[in-house]
Amino acid sequence: MQFEIIKKDSTSDARLGRCHTSHGIFHTPAFMPVGTQATVKSLTPEDLREIGAEIILSNTYHLFLRPGHERIQRLGGLHRFMHWDHPLLTDSGGFQVFSLNSLVKISEEGVQFQSHIDGSRHLLSPEKAIEIQEAMGADIIMSLDECTPYPASHGEAERSLELTLNWSRRCKDSRRREDQALFGIVQGGMYSDLRKRSVGALREMGFAGYALGGLSVGESKEMMLEVVSQTAPLLPWDRPRYLMGVGTPFDMAQAVLRGVDMFDCVLPTRNARNGMLFTRSGRLVIKNARYADDDSSIDPGCSCYTCRHYSRAYLRHLYLAEEILAMRLNTIHNLHFYLTFIGEIRQAMAEERLKDWVKTCYAQWNSEEENNAEQPDRWGSSSRKKTPGKRNPSPARSASMK
Amino acid sequence: MQFEIIKKDSTSDARLGRCHTSHGIFHTPAFMPVGTQATVKSLTPEDLREIGAEIILSNTYHLFLRPGHERIQRLGGLHRFMHWDHPLLTDSGGFQVFSLNSLVKISEEGVQFQSHIDGSRHLLSPEKAIEIQEAMGADIIMSLDECTPYPASHGEAERSLELTLNWSRRCKDSRRREDQALFGIVQGGMYSDLRKRSVGALREMGFAGYALGGLSVGESKEMMLEVVSQTAPLLPWDRPRYLMGVGTPFDMAQAVLRGVDMFDCVLPTRNARNGMLFTRSGRLVIKNARYADDDSSIDPGCSCYTCRHYSRAYLRHLYLAEEILAMRLNTIHNLHFYLTFIGEIRQAMAEERLKDWVKTCYAQWNSEEENNAEQPDRWGSSSRKKTPGKRNPSPARSASMK
Repeated sequence: MQFEIIKKDSTSDARLGRCHTSHGIFHTPAFMPVGTQATVKSLTPEDLREIGAEIILSNTYHLFLRPGHERIQRLGGLHRFMHWDHPLLTDSGGFQVFSLNSLVKISEEGVQFQSHIDGSRHLLSPEKAIEIQEAMGADIIMSLDECTPYPASHGEAERSLELTLNWSRRCKDSRRREDQALFGIVQGGMYSDLRKRSVGALREMGFAGYALGGLSVGESKEMMLEVVSQTAPLLPWDRPRYLMGVGTPFDMAQAVLRGVDMFDCVLPTRNARNGMLFTRSGRLVIKNARYADDDSSIDPGCSCYTCRHYSRAYLRHLYLAEEILAMRLNTIHNLHFYLTFIGEIRQAMAEERLKDWVKTCYAQWNSEEENNAEQPDRWGSSSRKKTPGKRNPSPARSASMK
Repeated sequence: MQFEIIKKDSTSDARLGRCHTSHGIFHTPAFMPVGTQATVKSLTPEDLREIGAEIILSNTYHLFLRPGHERIQRLGGLHRFMHWDHPLLTDSGGFQVFSLNSLVKISEEGVQFQSHIDGSRHLLSPEKAIEIQEAMGADIIMSLDECTPYPASHGEAERSLELTLNWSRRCKDSRRREDQALFGIVQGGMYSDLRKRSVGALREMGFAGYALGGLSVGESKEMMLEVVSQTAPLLPWDRPRYLMGVGTPFDMAQAVLRGVDMFDCVLPTRNARNGMLFTRSGRLVIKNARYADDDSSIDPGCSCYTCRHYSRAYLRHLYLAEEILAMRLNTIHNLHFYLTFIGEIRQAMAEERLKDWVKTCYAQWNSEEENNAEQPDRWGSSSRKKTPGKRNPSPARSASMK
């Protein structure tokens, strides 16, 4: 993989870039729709391309359990299996092992867990995580980490970090395929000394890209951005930086200003299925009675397929009738919103007006905030607010069980 | 509406035709996908056009209860509401009133029933059925009938027929819109004298088209075809004939030979959602373990989107993982199968080889029958086999509650 920085923003740490992978290019900053079980729920690859997706993410944990990585390999790899001939990233599986299983046993060797599908026992080791991801063949693969819970004491975060560093080295050592880019994951909890140590050790090992892990797990938005601010500048300039599981459009804009290049989050897709739609002027809960006779589109300024052809009244009807098409049309809209949002960030950067663009967004957010006082987070369900316990990271990051 | 017969088959009663409606043409024999709640489950209108749908059906009962016909009218009518700018047929609502409600009260005035959604009480009269359908604005609307249960004594069938004839007349008298074609419905149970009387009375009233009702409700396939054979020739030559709720591809081919022009059935769409796929060489139950590693398409001879891009192994994975995309890809395939099937019937008729074409199909059916002795009805779930009681017509016809 080759990462090319086209432009450095003059007023922030933001970067405009291009990633060249074995399956084509994606532009950064990039948002990756989540396709947990080898499908972005309800959409075809053609739908995804039409709304501007250049790279998507799929979950190793789910695919390992069903249909199995060896089967996917026999069937020609994950790209071919799911008919997505473009850049693809798989996670290591570790995050879901922790978040979807109440009883896990962590050791130096790896994580022992039971399948949420049939109760079968498995060990996910660094070597296994690489074996699975090499069998599936995504363009970018992730090393196995332990997502440090929040809150964690300095001692706990340090022990967790050491385990992640050990696993990271073993991931690097066990990989065989040269056509995949392996990313390391920075941990260290909310402690700047540990984050710094993490970056140093990972840089020494050398990865094609670096992810910021252990965020969006219950800490405040300010704390999350503070960690990003401190950590991003320590990372090698010429490698992509990926903030895992983040987040709201607000979070993404703020992280871009701090030098982040890649994002993934289930918010747009999951919220779509729950009838929560993103618009420039705030969120819209489609089941509300006020939309029963509303002939306008979700967002009059939006050019997505859903907004071009369907009224709020129709979408409300589909949602209340529990029609499958509701999920599909809502998902198209929400992902189009996210991908347009990140595309506008790139455009603003190219035209040297990123800060102004963000300021305008803020003004819209704030005026909306006044109108929707009951909705403090106007883009909704920043799941970080529901503080999860240990081994139960943010639902906005964890993929659903199904 | 103008119905144009292009060709009369020389070896059977089959006809090749074209129906001109306010929203364009559809060719006959025609199969109409069922879009119960103003959506053919999981598909967009663009999907439907791509797989060859020219006319679809929507259910008055469901739309009357939710979102309401007056709302649909305010929003510009059903075509606009659901973004389907092509021929559209609505049924009268009577069939679902009977099949989805255990307690209905029938009188000369109409049918009293309780909503399956909120328990509210309603009266569906002939005048109301027309009012609702005129508000929604489909191109073809149906008069209110009582679907005579099976079995029924001659006396019961006669009383039921008289009620239907009375209602048919009131439907005709109460209609106001001239841009919609109103079809009458032939009843009379399995009694040829009553069917004959029914046709005579309806012809006297004069309808734009004639439907054969009260079939596919528990009687044998032979009995159903016998009624069609006796009744179709009595109908006016120059009006389309619609066999309601039928059926399997076998049923459709047989009915075409007997002079039927239009069909609707939930089999292809409902079976798709249950993982039962139609192929030329028999049905395929996608969840079967034999497909776990099967890299071939559902039907190697099929050109649908699903077969062009996805393996049986992937479709099995999606189905087992309960992914929404499974329903969509399966529905595309099954509807494509039905629409291709009926399209080939038209083509064979145009080329004067209809009987040969049907014979070839039979040969395929029979060889398949030998291979699948445990599946006597190789295209599956001919629901007529589960004999329904009174007021509980065939599930293959009734739309689902949701």
